[in-house]
Amino acid sequence: MFDAIYARGAVATHFSDDAWVQAMVDVEAALTRTLVALGTIPREAGERALAATAQPGRVDVALLRRSVAENATPVVGLVTALREGLGDDASWIHLGATSQDIVDTALMRLVRRAFDPLLEDLDAAADACARLAEEHRATPMIARTLLQQALPTSFGLYAAAWLDGLDQARVHLVHVRDVELAVQMGGPVGGRDPRVADGVAAELGLAASTISWATTRVHTGLCASVLGTLAGVLATVARDVTLLAQTEIAEVREGRAGGSSAMAHKRNPVAAVSALACTRRVPGLVATMLSAMEQEHQRAAGAWQAEWGTLAELVTLTGSATAWVRDLVGSLEIDPARMEANLAVAATAGDPLPDGREALIDRALANHEEVRRSP
Amino acid sequence: MFDAIYARGAVATHFSDDAWVQAMVDVEAALTRTLVALGTIPREAGERALAATAQPGRVDVALLRRSVAENATPVVGLVTALREGLGDDASWIHLGATSQDIVDTALMRLVRRAFDPLLEDLDAAADACARLAEEHRATPMIARTLLQQALPTSFGLYAAAWLDGLDQARVHLVHVRDVELAVQMGGPVGGRDPRVADGVAAELGLAASTISWATTRVHTGLCASVLGTLAGVLATVARDVTLLAQTEIAEVREGRAGGSSAMAHKRNPVAAVSALACTRRVPGLVATMLSAMEQEHQRAAGAWQAEWGTLAELVTLTGSATAWVRDLVGSLEIDPARMEANLAVAATAGDPLPDGREALIDRALANHEEVRRSP
Amino acid sequence: MFDAIYARGAVATHFSDDAWVQAMVDVEAALTRTLVALGTIPREAGERALAATAQPGRVDVALLRRSVAENATPVVGLVTALREGLGDDASWIHLGATSQDIVDTALMRLVRRAFDPLLEDLDAAADACARLAEEHRATPMIARTLLQQALPTSFGLYAAAWLDGLDQARVHLVHVRDVELAVQMGGPVGGRDPRVADGVAAELGLAASTISWATTRVHTGLCASVLGTLAGVLATVARDVTLLAQTEIAEVREGRAGGSSAMAHKRNPVAAVSALACTRRVPGLVATMLSAMEQEHQRAAGAWQAEWGTLAELVTLTGSATAWVRDLVGSLEIDPARMEANLAVAATAGDPLPDGREALIDRALANHEEVRRSP
Amino acid sequence: MFDAIYARGAVATHFSDDAWVQAMVDVEAALTRTLVALGTIPREAGERALAATAQPGRVDVALLRRSVAENATPVVGLVTALREGLGDDASWIHLGATSQDIVDTALMRLVRRAFDPLLEDLDAAADACARLAEEHRATPMIARTLLQQALPTSFGLYAAAWLDGLDQARVHLVHVRDVELAVQMGGPVGGRDPRVADGVAAELGLAASTISWATTRVHTGLCASVLGTLAGVLATVARDVTLLAQTEIAEVREGRAGGSSAMAHKRNPVAAVSALACTRRVPGLVATMLSAMEQEHQRAAGAWQAEWGTLAELVTLTGSATAWVRDLVGSLEIDPARMEANLAVAATAGDPLPDGREALIDRALANHEEVRRSP
Repeated sequence: MFDAIYARGAVATHFSDDAWVQAMVDVEAALTRTLVALGTIPREAGERALAATAQPGRVDVALLRRSVAENATPVVGLVTALREGLGDDASWIHLGATSQDIVDTALMRLVRRAFDPLLEDLDAAADACARLAEEHRATPMIARTLLQQALPTSFGLYAAAWLDGLDQARVHLVHVRDVELAVQMGGPVGGRDPRVADGVAAELGLAASTISWATTRVHTGLCASVLGTLAGVLATVARDVTLLAQTEIAEVREGRAGGSSAMAHKRNPVAAVSALACTRRVPGLVATMLSAMEQEHQRAAGAWQAEWGTLAELVTLTGSATAWVRDLVGSLEIDPARMEANLAVAATAGDPLPDGREALIDRALANHEEVRRSP
Repeated sequence: MFDAIYARGAVATHFSDDAWVQAMVDVEAALTRTLVALGTIPREAGERALAATAQPGRVDVALLRRSVAENATPVVGLVTALREGLGDDASWIHLGATSQDIVDTALMRLVRRAFDPLLEDLDAAADACARLAEEHRATPMIARTLLQQALPTSFGLYAAAWLDGLDQARVHLVHVRDVELAVQMGGPVGGRDPRVADGVAAELGLAASTISWATTRVHTGLCASVLGTLAGVLATVARDVTLLAQTEIAEVREGRAGGSSAMAHKRNPVAAVSALACTRRVPGLVATMLSAMEQEHQRAAGAWQAEWGTLAELVTLTGSATAWVRDLVGSLEIDPARMEANLAVAATAGDPLPDGREALIDRALANHEEVRRSP
Repeated sequence: MFDAIYARGAVATHFSDDAWVQAMVDVEAALTRTLVALGTIPREAGERALAATAQPGRVDVALLRRSVAENATPVVGLVTALREGLGDDASWIHLGATSQDIVDTALMRLVRRAFDPLLEDLDAAADACARLAEEHRATPMIARTLLQQALPTSFGLYAAAWLDGLDQARVHLVHVRDVELAVQMGGPVGGRDPRVADGVAAELGLAASTISWATTRVHTGLCASVLGTLAGVLATVARDVTLLAQTEIAEVREGRAGGSSAMAHKRNPVAAVSALACTRRVPGLVATMLSAMEQEHQRAAGAWQAEWGTLAELVTLTGSATAWVRDLVGSLEIDPARMEANLAVAATAGDPLPDGREALIDRALANHEEVRRSP
Repeated sequence: MFDAIYARGAVATHFSDDAWVQAMVDVEAALTRTLVALGTIPREAGERALAATAQPGRVDVALLRRSVAENATPVVGLVTALREGLGDDASWIHLGATSQDIVDTALMRLVRRAFDPLLEDLDAAADACARLAEEHRATPMIARTLLQQALPTSFGLYAAAWLDGLDQARVHLVHVRDVELAVQMGGPVGGRDPRVADGVAAELGLAASTISWATTRVHTGLCASVLGTLAGVLATVARDVTLLAQTEIAEVREGRAGGSSAMAHKRNPVAAVSALACTRRVPGLVATMLSAMEQEHQRAAGAWQAEWGTLAELVTLTGSATAWVRDLVGSLEIDPARMEANLAVAATAGDPLPDGREALIDRALANHEEVRRSP
């Protein structure tokens, strides 16, 4: 029921049961294709096996659930289902692979796909901030430090800080997408010929990995962390809006405010509140991912299995917060008259706007152009 | 798909969408009943309104989702649905209440109900530990400190430490159930006549509250914390089993071990691994609940809304870990011969068992009896 | 340098190096005294040994540091220092004990002592809230939900919510002090005759423990958690003050506000900001303590050693926040005229104060009386 | 006293009170020099002011502590001390700056300096892993998954996974050092001419920043996160050593093991335990830094001030863990005979070593060469 808050936008759809099943099937297929290309599997036999993996409905979610309950991994059930009826060709499925190869690579694939809508929402949010920064370059308002009126600034410069935070986060997200969302295909103990992993990575459009990262989890740890820093920026934007929208300040207002079950006059900052409901849940999840980096020997007993639900939730919540902030800044109503009125009562009302304002806004906008150039 | 790991047992069912709807309807009904009893609502009118809340299917989950999306609360939609077609009686629904009254009280009701299966699983797990402590009072084994062999002990004393941890956690859980899972019924700004809250608490079997706790969240913070300490004890039990079950040590073994997709000979400690997969996710969630205690004025913008999903997940994961540990210790196979063999190679093999062993086991068992006496 | 923020008040002094040394010496002395009382150590020999432990300066902090560096415990060095020159009596020191007995019990003793000033500050803060609740029972102001003006309330009822949160936290702190701050004296593997632990507990004024809690860490986990809930309440008070003190709202003001290096006109809410600087650091530390509950066999390799610095910091930060909030509410200046002015512009200005206001304030004050009765 | 565990190596020294004072003085001096270069301050007057900042002992730590206690910032006191006796030249100190400029930039400078010994220790640790990987390319041992014996591998491949984790973390650390440890010099509300910030960055060898990051804290959030991922890798190495060093497995042993206060025969894995004591404390601190990213308007009330102690501690603990792991792997004793003996009892003892072993070790070593090339 609360998915409307916690799972807004398209990101969440990439972690449904069906998406998981498809991703795991895709990984098995990519492995078989790679082994055909490397000459390990005879081409015709490989193609028969691949045809099986392509049959819709071959893998039953209920079967995988049972496999999870019995083996703490869905892959035992997955392989059984994919091999069923294949006779001698059965062995061309999952050849030389292990559970962790399939689950890790599938998870990376899901995150990779979820990054598309997430980045789209992020770009739209940043573009909206850029418009605000441009449009309100010279809209005067009072700056506030420690929640006390300080000195005059412009709302454009205020919005430029949001923009710069979003742009910084985007650079790191793109790095994660291109470098950290890597293939895992080391076989049972991480010692498989790396050409297999390289091939699967190419098949799936994932990053390659120097060697197996089965228990050295920098990829997942950094992915979580970068999502955490994005959430931190989104939180700042949303928090600022709730503060600027206070009845007594009223310098901004959500375009689409919400109602109350008890007070008909209220106009609640629903997007900002929902974004914060998501972002507040993120740092604890990042800590879980980092704690889970301590993994034993060649496959961890517990820490690895804790990652699956945590990372999916982390991407979903951060994606949802991004979608909320996109709506928030995209429809934000600015009240320059109220800004001027609040400024007029400030102790420093007569002071000039800060001298670097124009140059800083220009820098933030130019940097945004630059950042947006990366696909 | 991973619910088989993260949501084992009956606890999770108490946080389904349907359970949420029913709990919110129950709270509205309890409020109307209370106001009838207090004479605020005329009895007959009140009963007509109550009949409406009792109609199955009156509240549509999809409608509540839309309400969440539009208002960051399901209660606007809930009240609309409950009042529909009631004409003049509509106002007897949700009279004088606010969103937070309904959501907080419903959440406490859900947690209260989830505590029943959780405590049942916990008791079964503790009883199994008590049996192990009793049965293996004098089964010698080597104790290990810093993962190095130390001095002889008995497996019964080892299991008594698990028992004592579970029993300590239980005492705190019972306190939470009876004192912290409290009603919230303060109206829009927390100033409603406290007889209303007291009445609703009695109707629903929840604890009363001195005054409104809309933004002073000790109840939820402590509930989360106590679940966190239970998870910590469960983690210790599961971690110990993974260590004792190592191939090279092999002093215990899960009764129902799992298979591997790559290595047919493996016998994986599925219950212990799954319990750890749950417990590892808990501390981060507790931190989220504690961070969310910082709430503004008379209703928080973001922190409160972050609690809903977090607390539900925290109860679910801890409940799942409890169910896994119940299975784990309930079917644990002990290998005294192997314990003796490992002890024989220890530097301190000839040393006697610790002098307080019997007295300590007796204390732990007597305390367990005492703890179990509380319902 | 930042101790002025993070370590205000007397709590921090209880975790100095000297305090640690004294606490560990006290524990060794209590053990020897207990063993004399139990007849394990001959009285005269025991007294000669005790005389040694009482010599000031016998234990050198530098020696203990080296012991920590070499053995990951100060106790190897401590015992060497205490036994030095004792000849045949040397063995009466640390007889049958292990490192963890000394460090755990000393840490509990330090926390126990730190609770005295913490509770004193907490009581003073709560008393100040009670005075505000009483004095401003009927001082009208606008309540705010989701940071939007909602309906009228009184500042007395606002302050009563702070009071109730502090009182709830106090009840749990007293429980921790009296029940959870327990002795640890199980010997090398946790199997020592429990009369020894009981005796040491009585000597030191600590709680007894059913059996050894060397790796089932409910005592420390719950202590951390309860401090976390106190921090959450303190955060709410401090956050509310920063919001009410905003230039545009200005309904309250710190009695002792701070200056700015750049803006002479500013009057910064130093106590509230400092309290928040402390409370924000607490949830992460609680998560660390809960994560560290997963401990191996009879003594953990890493998780236990992580607790020492974490718990000391957690008590210190929470104690500091309590001291700041004591100052904050003790000197808070209320501006009823401004409250009335802000209320006048509200959409609901004409609405009456909530009907339960008086009864709720009475309940909170009566409960405070009750809570304060416990020492 | 526990600094020997938590603050090993040279990293901690960079966060002493003296280091903080010097860093803040350095920042003020760099600002004055920059303003002279830009022509804002007359050269001779500027040089007189700079001479004052260069006087040793001009700034008293006690004074700064008082400033922190009174203003929640040391900078009010710092500026007073630096300006003292300068007469008309006083205004050339701190011209146009604000507290946050000085504290943020000083903190970045301290972290920047602390990265030198941290990276040195990290490189030494990675080099040692590279040697182990090379030397033990073909040393057979049993791989273990879920703490169960799985299939044969070589210790060289095992160590190559540690190496790869450390190398991945190093790449991110170097990025943080060169890009994220940025200057802050936006003046009271973040609107200062950016040439000032650029000049100060160049003076101090810090990264430039597009615009002020006073409340969009990606720099600090990412710095914390990357340290968290390093800690995660270090934890894996240390955890593996404690497991491989178990009495029953005994395949590796610390070169410099520690003693016990109770059991003379014990040989405790002190470096691994100490490393874990540090790493276990890190994820909670990262969560605190990420939570603290939610900052208000132009300067935060509480969240910013929470960062100072947290980030210093995070760098210190991670640096300490790095120093411990450097010692650990640098002196690790490998027992190939014991590895062979343990392998002999495995179900898969006759299986060949994994086919990609040599290629993977080569890749890890080549990547290490590449990574080490960056200064």
